[in-house]
Amino acid sequence: METIESMAEVRYTGEKGLAEALRGADALFVYDFLSTAVPGAWHAADKLRWLHIASAGVDPVMFPALRESDVTLTNSRGVFDASIAEYVLGVIIAFAKDLPRSLELQREGRWQHRESERVAGRHALVVGTGPIGRAIARMLRAAGMVVSGMGRRAREDDPDFGAVHASAELVRHLPAFDYVVAVAPLTEQTKGMFDAAAFATMKQSARFVNVGRGELVVTADLVTAMREGRIAGAALDVFETEPLPPDDPLWTMPNVLVSPHMSGDFAGWRNALVEVFADNFERWHTGRPLRNVVDKQLGYVPSGHLGA
Amino acid sequence: METIESMAEVRYTGEKGLAEALRGADALFVYDFLSTAVPGAWHAADKLRWLHIASAGVDPVMFPALRESDVTLTNSRGVFDASIAEYVLGVIIAFAKDLPRSLELQREGRWQHRESERVAGRHALVVGTGPIGRAIARMLRAAGMVVSGMGRRAREDDPDFGAVHASAELVRHLPAFDYVVAVAPLTEQTKGMFDAAAFATMKQSARFVNVGRGELVVTADLVTAMREGRIAGAALDVFETEPLPPDDPLWTMPNVLVSPHMSGDFAGWRNALVEVFADNFERWHTGRPLRNVVDKQLGYVPSGHLGA
Repeated sequence: METIESMAEVRYTGEKGLAEALRGADALFVYDFLSTAVPGAWHAADKLRWLHIASAGVDPVMFPALRESDVTLTNSRGVFDASIAEYVLGVIIAFAKDLPRSLELQREGRWQHRESERVAGRHALVVGTGPIGRAIARMLRAAGMVVSGMGRRAREDDPDFGAVHASAELVRHLPAFDYVVAVAPLTEQTKGMFDAAAFATMKQSARFVNVGRGELVVTADLVTAMREGRIAGAALDVFETEPLPPDDPLWTMPNVLVSPHMSGDFAGWRNALVEVFADNFERWHTGRPLRNVVDKQLGYVPSGHLGA
Repeated sequence: METIESMAEVRYTGEKGLAEALRGADALFVYDFLSTAVPGAWHAADKLRWLHIASAGVDPVMFPALRESDVTLTNSRGVFDASIAEYVLGVIIAFAKDLPRSLELQREGRWQHRESERVAGRHALVVGTGPIGRAIARMLRAAGMVVSGMGRRAREDDPDFGAVHASAELVRHLPAFDYVVAVAPLTEQTKGMFDAAAFATMKQSARFVNVGRGELVVTADLVTAMREGRIAGAALDVFETEPLPPDDPLWTMPNVLVSPHMSGDFAGWRNALVEVFADNFERWHTGRPLRNVVDKQLGYVPSGHLGA
C-alpha cells in the first residue's frame, strides 16, 4: 500500500467508520470481502467512482444502489484460481481413496484394508466457466478425469472444457457425472440451483463439491439428499451462513467434508490481493483501463473482459 | 482362472497345504503376496519352473534358494501404477491443504480459517524409477510440481523424470525437496536407506511418503525425526510389520497418516492381477517369452525388460 499512499490520500477503516471514510472518497477498496457494511454506508459515497473488492465473487456488493450507480466495480479475479483447483482435486482424491475413513481408523488404531476408487476416467462437471472453473477443469483433466463445463450458453469447443452444457439444462446433464463441482458466480440465476431436483438426478455414487458460494445450494435439500443417501458425499468450503453455526447438521454428517472458506487462501494470498488492487490503482491513477471490470448486470467479469 | 483350468491342472491351496500342492507343479501363482509360506514349502518344489507373484515388489520370495534356482520369477508390474500415483498426489494435496486438520476441526465443530500451501512449484523427489515411480512422477508433474527421480544410476534425460539422481547420493540431494516419495524395490541396497542421516538432512518443512516397502525406512529413526520435528509429516501406506501392531507409536503421532497397505488397491485390482497372470500363463503355455521377468540378482524387473 506504500506506493498507493504516495499517490493518494488513503483512509483505512473498519466497518464502523466506513460511512465517514467514504465521504469524499474517489475509490473504495473492500479488503474484508465478506463485510456487509458497504450497503449501509452507501449514502455517504458522494464522490465514489470505483469500488474494488478483494475477492472473486462480487455478490456481497451487488446491492441495487451500486448496480444502478455509475461506480465501476472490479474484482480480484485470478488470485485464487490455482489454489482452489488444487483443493478441488485434493478432496476428489480424498473421496476416491477413502482418506477420511483412513484417518478415522487411524484414530482407533485399526488396520482395515479397503479397496479404493480410481480417479482417472471418472466424469466431472464443473459448474461455472470463469477462471477458477477453468483452472479446476485443467487440473482435473491433468489427473486423468473426463471433464465437462456448465455455463450460460452451451458450446462444444471450449479450450478448457471441450463441451460446455447450458446451466438451464443442469438436471438433464447431472446423471452423467461422478463429481459435480459448484464454482459459478452467485447471481439471481444461479442462486439455489442445486436443489432437491438436482440432487435427485445425480448418481447415487456422486460427490458434490462447493467452492463457489453457499447460496448456490439449497442447503436443506443437500442435507436431505445426504441423509437419504441420494448422493455419496459432499465437500463444502462455502456456506449460506459463515462461519457455519455450531449446531449446523453439516458438521457431523457422514461423508460431508466441511472446511472454513479457505480453499483459495494459500500463504501469500493477502499480499497477492493487495497487488491486484495496487496494479489497478496505478491504472486508474494514470487513466488507463482497469482490469477485472465486473458487468454489474451479469454479476461477474464477462469472459470477453479478461483484462490481462 | 477358467481359461487356465481348461489348459492345466490347477491346484488351489492356502499356506498350510502349499508343500503338498507344490510337489509336481510346474508353475506357482502366489496370489497372497504377503505370504511368507513359500520358503518353508520350497523343499517340495521338485518340478517348478515358474513362479508368478501378485504384486509389484518381489521381496517376499527373494530367499536364497529361489534366487539360486533356475525358476523364472515374474511379477504383476503395471497393475498398481496409476492408482498409487493418485494416492500419492492425494496425500500431498492433503498435507498442503491441511485436510486432516480440517477433519479434526470438523469433529469439534470449530470454524478455524487457516492459510494453506500451494502444490504447484513444490519440489518432489521420487525414489524408485520403476513403473510406479514413473506414474507418480507424471502425476505430480501434471499437478504442477517440480519432480526429480532417484535410481541406481544418475542421468539427465529420463523421459518421465528429467533428472535422475544416484541413490548413493541420497543424503546430498534430500535438502532440496519438499516431498520425498519412497517407491524403490526392497533390496539389500535399498533396505533402511531412509535412516536418521536421511531425515536429518531433509527440510524441516518436508513430508515423507512411503508407498514402497516399510523396510526401506529405519522406522525408529522416522519416529524420532517426527517426534523432534525434523520433518513436517509422513504418509505411510507400508510398514516393517503389517498389519501395523496396535501399540505402534505411528498410529497416534501428529502429522503422520497411516493407511493399511491399500494405495494401489482400486476396486477391480484382484481381477486385474489374475488377468496379468492369465496373460503370462497363456504365453508360458504356448512357449512365448514371459512378461515382467524379474532379474533375481537385482530384485526387480530391469527397465530394459518392460515386456509390453
